[in-house]
Amino acid sequence: MYDLIIIGAGPAGITASVYAARKRMNFLVITKDIGGQTAWSGNIENYTGYQFISGPELTAKFEEHMKKYNIDLKENEQALALERKENSILVKTDKGKYETATLIIASGKTSKELGVPGEKEFKNRGLTYCATCDGPLFTGKDVAVVGGGNSALDAALQLVKIARRVYIINIADNLTGDAIMQEKVNSSKKVSILNNTRITSIFGDKMVKGIKIEKKDKEESLAVEGIFVEVGLKPNSAFARGIDINENGEIKVNCRNETNIPGVFAAGDVTDVVEKQIIIAAGEGSKAALGAFRYLSRKR
Amino acid sequence: MYDLIIIGAGPAGITASVYAARKRMNFLVITKDIGGQTAWSGNIENYTGYQFISGPELTAKFEEHMKKYNIDLKENEQALALERKENSILVKTDKGKYETATLIIASGKTSKELGVPGEKEFKNRGLTYCATCDGPLFTGKDVAVVGGGNSALDAALQLVKIARRVYIINIADNLTGDAIMQEKVNSSKKVSILNNTRITSIFGDKMVKGIKIEKKDKEESLAVEGIFVEVGLKPNSAFARGIDINENGEIKVNCRNETNIPGVFAAGDVTDVVEKQIIIAAGEGSKAALGAFRYLSRKR
Repeated sequence: MYDLIIIGAGPAGITASVYAARKRMNFLVITKDIGGQTAWSGNIENYTGYQFISGPELTAKFEEHMKKYNIDLKENEQALALERKENSILVKTDKGKYETATLIIASGKTSKELGVPGEKEFKNRGLTYCATCDGPLFTGKDVAVVGGGNSALDAALQLVKIARRVYIINIADNLTGDAIMQEKVNSSKKVSILNNTRITSIFGDKMVKGIKIEKKDKEESLAVEGIFVEVGLKPNSAFARGIDINENGEIKVNCRNETNIPGVFAAGDVTDVVEKQIIIAAGEGSKAALGAFRYLSRKR
Repeated sequence: MYDLIIIGAGPAGITASVYAARKRMNFLVITKDIGGQTAWSGNIENYTGYQFISGPELTAKFEEHMKKYNIDLKENEQALALERKENSILVKTDKGKYETATLIIASGKTSKELGVPGEKEFKNRGLTYCATCDGPLFTGKDVAVVGGGNSALDAALQLVKIARRVYIINIADNLTGDAIMQEKVNSSKKVSILNNTRITSIFGDKMVKGIKIEKKDKEESLAVEGIFVEVGLKPNSAFARGIDINENGEIKVNCRNETNIPGVFAAGDVTDVVEKQIIIAAGEGSKAALGAFRYLSRKR
């Protein structure tokens, strides 16, 4: 039986594991991947102490930091269910079962889908959810970014360096990303911003050829070879049955990162924390680990 | 009138300023110093992304990050009082008055004093509150660290490299710092740990010559030339009259870093946040800045 299991290894899970290691807890990290959304980010300029770093670079620094402690890490493994026992929690994954006295859920979020015809068919055939990963495939081509928040603007700013023309398909009246990012997007001659515009379907043959868009009930076609979906994220909380979530599926935590189940903590973007930021997720991971340590100290 | 004033430039204040700058807020930072307690720290191994960095180095990275944005910064200036106006807050300092729509208090903590005879007399004559700053002055000498938590152990670990002998004067039954730091301290032949021991006075002539200590009602003298006080911290909240504090003088905040006064936020070690850590303070600073930005957006 472990002192602690941490599910997820994004900024929250990694920070929790650094703190747990320094407290000499006997713990296990179970995760699908390393870095979470940070690994998918383009340029990061708001992680204090790094003026400018790419998502993959910051992920590498996080990973090295965690692995310095020679921790017990199960990568490419996914939590499927939790079972509450009298004095422990059983974590069931796609590969095994593990028992623990305390648990930190830091499983993050994944991209929301558009839910339009053609999306499944053209996934990885021109349609992608990760500009950082797939942007370079679209050198010199016309592409569309769907969304209007920071992730969409980050994707657009990565793509202006690669693509010929970048359309931002934004369902709202205005972009909602940070002012500094809006300015950068607005100042690029390669970018066309289509506000009040909805994507209704995707067409092509083997690969994407274009999208249908609708603006004020007027539908038209737009020829693009790449579609970058950035319409938000959904929390990876489905496995955590029995733990209170809010109307968005986010795990409810108090200021101490405690959930409704004693000994179960949560941190980062999977929670209802008010803002989703790398530096915030890291701080929350630290709080969760110190909370789990204190919980155990009180019990033993 | 400013959109925002940030009081303090430790990890919380600096992160708040990076976020405010990226939101293009019109803001002012008022601070006594840069880095807060981070500047006084020895080796930092738990700021995610930096496996190993000294306090002064991390402070330099923080400072460069903040100053990249060409912000309005008043250094060596201290907030003395707040006055609440109908739609703004007036911040009075030792050098001027500034009006703002929103405020973030990130003024941190300062070292607690021992409250024993000789403390005031020998301050900076062998007695210090900062091992990082003053440790090198005690090369080859016998020194005492007063305290048993992480700050005391951090000080002791810095001093083993410099001093001849390090006594840890710990009032409690056991050290309370992280296990990993306790192990390091225990494994040093230069360190003597005196648990259940209280310092009762400091003696010397022009400079410190030793301390009186008491263990189970038995008093004895210990010859040391350096005394490093690490017995905890008190929040710098005295200027913030009208803002709710807890029994320790810490500013009470909710999970959104809001205080009891609308438009006034607080972040970092000056607040009642459950743990005092650099990475946590940074995360809280981000939340406070985004909170101030949202507050203004709703009002305007």
